[in-house]
Amino acid sequence: MDFSLSHRSHDWLQRLDRFMREEVEPAEAEYTAQLAGGADWRAWRQPPVMETLKARARALGLWNLFLPERDHGGAGLSNVEYAALAERMGHSLIAPEVFNCNAPDTGNMEVLVRYGSPEQQARWLEPLLAGEIRSAFCMTEPDVASSDATNMRATATIEGDEVVLNGRKWWTTGIGHPNVRFAIFMGLTDPTAEKHRQHSMVICPLDTPGVSVVRMLPVFGTYDEPSGHGEVRFDNVRLPLSSILLGPGRGFEIAQGRLGPGRIHHCMRALGAAERALALLCARGEQRIAFGKPLVKLGGNADIIADLRIGIEQARLLTLKAAWTIDTQGVKAAMSLISQIKVAAPAILQQAVDAAIQIHGAAGLSDDTPLAALYALARSLRIADGPDAVHRGLIAKLELRQQAANREARA
Amino acid sequence: MDFSLSHRSHDWLQRLDRFMREEVEPAEAEYTAQLAGGADWRAWRQPPVMETLKARARALGLWNLFLPERDHGGAGLSNVEYAALAERMGHSLIAPEVFNCNAPDTGNMEVLVRYGSPEQQARWLEPLLAGEIRSAFCMTEPDVASSDATNMRATATIEGDEVVLNGRKWWTTGIGHPNVRFAIFMGLTDPTAEKHRQHSMVICPLDTPGVSVVRMLPVFGTYDEPSGHGEVRFDNVRLPLSSILLGPGRGFEIAQGRLGPGRIHHCMRALGAAERALALLCARGEQRIAFGKPLVKLGGNADIIADLRIGIEQARLLTLKAAWTIDTQGVKAAMSLISQIKVAAPAILQQAVDAAIQIHGAAGLSDDTPLAALYALARSLRIADGPDAVHRGLIAKLELRQQAANREARA
Amino acid sequence: MDFSLSHRSHDWLQRLDRFMREEVEPAEAEYTAQLAGGADWRAWRQPPVMETLKARARALGLWNLFLPERDHGGAGLSNVEYAALAERMGHSLIAPEVFNCNAPDTGNMEVLVRYGSPEQQARWLEPLLAGEIRSAFCMTEPDVASSDATNMRATATIEGDEVVLNGRKWWTTGIGHPNVRFAIFMGLTDPTAEKHRQHSMVICPLDTPGVSVVRMLPVFGTYDEPSGHGEVRFDNVRLPLSSILLGPGRGFEIAQGRLGPGRIHHCMRALGAAERALALLCARGEQRIAFGKPLVKLGGNADIIADLRIGIEQARLLTLKAAWTIDTQGVKAAMSLISQIKVAAPAILQQAVDAAIQIHGAAGLSDDTPLAALYALARSLRIADGPDAVHRGLIAKLELRQQAANREARA
Amino acid sequence: MDFSLSHRSHDWLQRLDRFMREEVEPAEAEYTAQLAGGADWRAWRQPPVMETLKARARALGLWNLFLPERDHGGAGLSNVEYAALAERMGHSLIAPEVFNCNAPDTGNMEVLVRYGSPEQQARWLEPLLAGEIRSAFCMTEPDVASSDATNMRATATIEGDEVVLNGRKWWTTGIGHPNVRFAIFMGLTDPTAEKHRQHSMVICPLDTPGVSVVRMLPVFGTYDEPSGHGEVRFDNVRLPLSSILLGPGRGFEIAQGRLGPGRIHHCMRALGAAERALALLCARGEQRIAFGKPLVKLGGNADIIADLRIGIEQARLLTLKAAWTIDTQGVKAAMSLISQIKVAAPAILQQAVDAAIQIHGAAGLSDDTPLAALYALARSLRIADGPDAVHRGLIAKLELRQQAANREARA
Repeated sequence: MDFSLSHRSHDWLQRLDRFMREEVEPAEAEYTAQLAGGADWRAWRQPPVMETLKARARALGLWNLFLPERDHGGAGLSNVEYAALAERMGHSLIAPEVFNCNAPDTGNMEVLVRYGSPEQQARWLEPLLAGEIRSAFCMTEPDVASSDATNMRATATIEGDEVVLNGRKWWTTGIGHPNVRFAIFMGLTDPTAEKHRQHSMVICPLDTPGVSVVRMLPVFGTYDEPSGHGEVRFDNVRLPLSSILLGPGRGFEIAQGRLGPGRIHHCMRALGAAERALALLCARGEQRIAFGKPLVKLGGNADIIADLRIGIEQARLLTLKAAWTIDTQGVKAAMSLISQIKVAAPAILQQAVDAAIQIHGAAGLSDDTPLAALYALARSLRIADGPDAVHRGLIAKLELRQQAANREARA
Repeated sequence: MDFSLSHRSHDWLQRLDRFMREEVEPAEAEYTAQLAGGADWRAWRQPPVMETLKARARALGLWNLFLPERDHGGAGLSNVEYAALAERMGHSLIAPEVFNCNAPDTGNMEVLVRYGSPEQQARWLEPLLAGEIRSAFCMTEPDVASSDATNMRATATIEGDEVVLNGRKWWTTGIGHPNVRFAIFMGLTDPTAEKHRQHSMVICPLDTPGVSVVRMLPVFGTYDEPSGHGEVRFDNVRLPLSSILLGPGRGFEIAQGRLGPGRIHHCMRALGAAERALALLCARGEQRIAFGKPLVKLGGNADIIADLRIGIEQARLLTLKAAWTIDTQGVKAAMSLISQIKVAAPAILQQAVDAAIQIHGAAGLSDDTPLAALYALARSLRIADGPDAVHRGLIAKLELRQQAANREARA
Repeated sequence: MDFSLSHRSHDWLQRLDRFMREEVEPAEAEYTAQLAGGADWRAWRQPPVMETLKARARALGLWNLFLPERDHGGAGLSNVEYAALAERMGHSLIAPEVFNCNAPDTGNMEVLVRYGSPEQQARWLEPLLAGEIRSAFCMTEPDVASSDATNMRATATIEGDEVVLNGRKWWTTGIGHPNVRFAIFMGLTDPTAEKHRQHSMVICPLDTPGVSVVRMLPVFGTYDEPSGHGEVRFDNVRLPLSSILLGPGRGFEIAQGRLGPGRIHHCMRALGAAERALALLCARGEQRIAFGKPLVKLGGNADIIADLRIGIEQARLLTLKAAWTIDTQGVKAAMSLISQIKVAAPAILQQAVDAAIQIHGAAGLSDDTPLAALYALARSLRIADGPDAVHRGLIAKLELRQQAANREARA
Repeated sequence: MDFSLSHRSHDWLQRLDRFMREEVEPAEAEYTAQLAGGADWRAWRQPPVMETLKARARALGLWNLFLPERDHGGAGLSNVEYAALAERMGHSLIAPEVFNCNAPDTGNMEVLVRYGSPEQQARWLEPLLAGEIRSAFCMTEPDVASSDATNMRATATIEGDEVVLNGRKWWTTGIGHPNVRFAIFMGLTDPTAEKHRQHSMVICPLDTPGVSVVRMLPVFGTYDEPSGHGEVRFDNVRLPLSSILLGPGRGFEIAQGRLGPGRIHHCMRALGAAERALALLCARGEQRIAFGKPLVKLGGNADIIADLRIGIEQARLLTLKAAWTIDTQGVKAAMSLISQIKVAAPAILQQAVDAAIQIHGAAGLSDDTPLAALYALARSLRIADGPDAVHRGLIAKLELRQQAANREARA
């Protein structure tokens, strides 16, 4: 048992932390000022300061840290090593893109590294790794409960030497980004196959005829400009068969491998965000005076701080354990833990943000602090990558299986 | 003990309900479409459909229902009678203005009815009662913890026959409305007086030199167009002494009388909003299918529905009891109950909206449903009119006093 | 809408309150001292002070208050009128028996009043109403989930002119009482009948051959001496057919009518118990000093007090509304409300007792205060008369039905 | 970062687990049967099976595992190594004594090892280490809030070459044990000294004139026979000065060192107990059928299981981190973490037991399962060794200090 960061991790973290403190966090206001600031996503532009920061990060070697594979330009970090870095990035909402570590590009890069053909890698992975383009991932659909992925209705039909995409997707993150160039689309190929063999993942260039972005979807009134979350139509979108990743019917196989580490990243960033909320809460609580005392001395505020510290600390350890289990025993062995953190980390983030808003009074509701944006993040995370209910269901199923095995072993 | 609505109340409710169902709720989409839709509040316009609905409501006699005083055109309803109507209005975010029952105008009208001079009433109350103008209330300040109202720093200084306003206010609701004409401003007049005798309330026409709206404040990214919540500067704003309500130093006295019924209204509307969230939750939960079953049959969803029903029912009864206590024994006797509902009603609304969002999946985060807007309402209400912590503190103080009295009576 | 007690109710309450304060509560210590104090239930005796208090209560006319039927010696109170009295009784664990208002005798008396034959009434109801004997109710069984009553396995088989009882029952409350004389037994008569027509209720004198008390069951280590909760075996217990209440197969019909008011009583007593816990919490919190301050001034204790006041107030109003609904519209119309209070009232009692224990420190765990006993009561009530989960399920079912009806009415 | 057990730890755990499974757990029923079973503590006897099990444990080398010091017969385990073993012991309420690892003897042995003189060690430590005697620790007092230890009023006055003990202590665990021979008593020696220099710890043989056990205190109706928790009077108890540990005024210094590891042990055992509750919950939930399904398939039960798994896992990791921090950086560096687990571990245990009771129905309230006893343990642990509120206060204080340091470092 060893709860310390490795020397290497510690070094990475110090370099990242300094860059975050000295360059990324001070640039947040400039970034916001450079946004077009509206619902009209066609007017969105990449803030120039982001490209500057990306160039700096790359120069500093703080680039593609999420990617274990060194031969593809990844940093060669294990999940547990990356976790501390992801947490630190989570303090700033603009940070992940700075380091080329933002969803869904990270997941797409992982998929391309592991399952992409050399041609697919050359065309799509290389520019993604270089931060020159962005990408999207089209899975969720408006007309069905996407919590049950087998509900998916969009189709990826094979006709001769083409695969034809049809259907509607939404909550396609990043689809509004000026630099976005392709999406990975998941759709039904063979309804007669075994349940987890029916769907395919297809790389779809966004300028293919038949692809149209219908609208951007706000989250609590904000659009996450310039990435956005869009609704996308696919009308008889025809692509060569070589666009299919790994082959027809292997969509779930890829999805499975994609989700574990991605959830760790989300959760670690969520914990960084929770730390920021707690820091804001404490700072405000010390500075504001009511009834002759700083707010932290009033009512149950000390209890609130203590419970948040406990909750964040616990969720961090659980996330690290999930990361370590993936590193040492693989995603399958970590399945329950991954679902556990997917429930626990967004929950404590939401609790931390809610408490921080409350101590800020009405200021916490506005955009004078990052709290409203962090709240939107927290609330989204309880739904994205599987809603709480699905993860709880899986945890319980695995627990009952384990308990039955224990009883049998004793009998 | 009688939990039934009076015949009169029941009649009012039926008329209101029909109008809500047939005209107000169907007009929500049109109202939204008529909004300018941006952060630039100077471009905001009153949606024409609102004026149409107002005219209809007035014609139907569904007007100024909040106002007990018949001689001022009020409906003559008690708080408990109005409560059921306010709850029904709460189902729609656009409804309160339709009935001329929206904050802060209602509170301002009550203040003018009770404390306004004949001149003040003629100039400001009459057009407000007629729905021709809107008004604002300037209390909260950016630089101090407004949860402790005695912190207030803006000044209303008497110089000769003038009162001079200086300072910054924010979260001034309605200040962005095209029809807004005056604000009631609260400021420090005499720092040497007894603590609750230092402040005055002053009627300030918004075209007075020195008044400037600095910006509108978003709540979770939305501006509540066309009312808005603004930051307002007062720089040497000079007004005749007759602008002071009731006289110098009587601001807290007025504030005290203002708050009780207003909180009841807020809470009842919150419960209407909670009912809407629960209705949306149930409808979605029956319709969406995952893993072969409607969502309401899965996991803990039935428990969630049951707990919301219990919570809403309880909060409604508590709010009605607070209203009844004001009606029968006055605001002072109802102080603990008013604080109790101010904690309980927004809390159950937040819980209902959070659960409804979760069952809607990502759709619940967007503006495809009213849930994100209802969430913003819920979250704001836990801060507006005194944050939870202040109300809990008051409830505990009164409880301990009562318990001590009980112990003494037994000894 | 009227939240006041009727004059009559108020008078009853004042008389009851005085008797409680002056005679019942001061006698608690003597009662405890007169208990045998052990697990050996055969040594249990009725404390003489209880009989003295019963005689006094009867003399004061504070007797059988639970029973609406005046012609059977009931007080003629409605459920809502009785509610305030039941709450007051709930302050003391010994009070219900003093007023002949303790479970399960109250339920048994109601059953006999409504469904008993004249012979059954003469033999069993009269002495019960007079407080001369006690009774038990045998429903729950050890081998099946009794939350689903149709699971019941014990049998009441009709053989010629006899009904023959077989099976095991447990948690038969009152079975250890020296004065207990009969039990109402529920068992399966006709497995081929419609699901709710299979079971019968049978009056079984406890001296009938084949009835044996196996043991008493502790609740958190205490036995509720001298009533106790027992496990009872029925081995070929033969009784005349006239022992069957209302007739074979009508057990559920009787059970249904029995449960509504009984749950109100339990809940109101629970709220009285919660008030007592809160009073103890406040008294201790004012008196104990730590870190230079009374405990109520420390940490989140004021918030705890406020939340309990809100919770108790809400649960009381909900219980009163359930009682009023039974009174005015019948048990069926009140079904959801009854289940709602069955969840809400024990929950707030458990929360109040837990908080009061915590503020008492270790003293709260011992029998130096009534808190440990109140905790056992609270915890039992979340299981007795249907566990929380069953009630939540019913509330949700009725809610979904109502919401569907609302949607239809709107369409 | 490494979440695996060391090889050594793993070996210890396997040996312990086998002994627990094969000998300790099967002996629980026999142990209970050998108890006298009453409130009359003078009749309590050590169950012979306990001495048999102790002899076996010692023969297997599973003895004094808690003690790091090998030269005193300890196992030489670090806190983090012992943690896994303590958790395993926590599955059975009788296990700690079997391994000579039960409170308060463990704490007393640690104190004697570190602060005892050679004479003190020879007389008291040796027989304790051998499991021949038991001991007690007299700190908590009935008349003051012991959450603030400086409230302590009992005195240890120095008169010439004697120290004289006076005062009342209670919740003195183990004082009823037939084998108990001495207590460590903490009392006020010099009220004029600096606040944490006023108290002394004194070894007091229990047969010294003036020591009397007033009574045993039940916890939710049970006495933890044959150890018990007692109220003890000290009336002019005269002892040689050599009875003072470390010297006059050094009580808090010793207490400080004593508490860290002890809390880890408590918490790890609590987590073992929580695992047992969860195992019972799952087993019952699979086996019991209601409404045609096993309980685990009904309502929110799967969610409950998932939340418990998350909560236990998180609390375990937090406890291990606290242990590791003590091992690597000392108790002072681990102060916040120790308080964090002291809040988190008993809380999740209470939650697990409450849920397990609920799924067992009334059976969970009786002594047919260990759940009622585990509940008493959980509830006690939220008070013992500092109530939740004190730990939350300390966590918040340290957090605010850390946050202020962070802000300063950034400025």
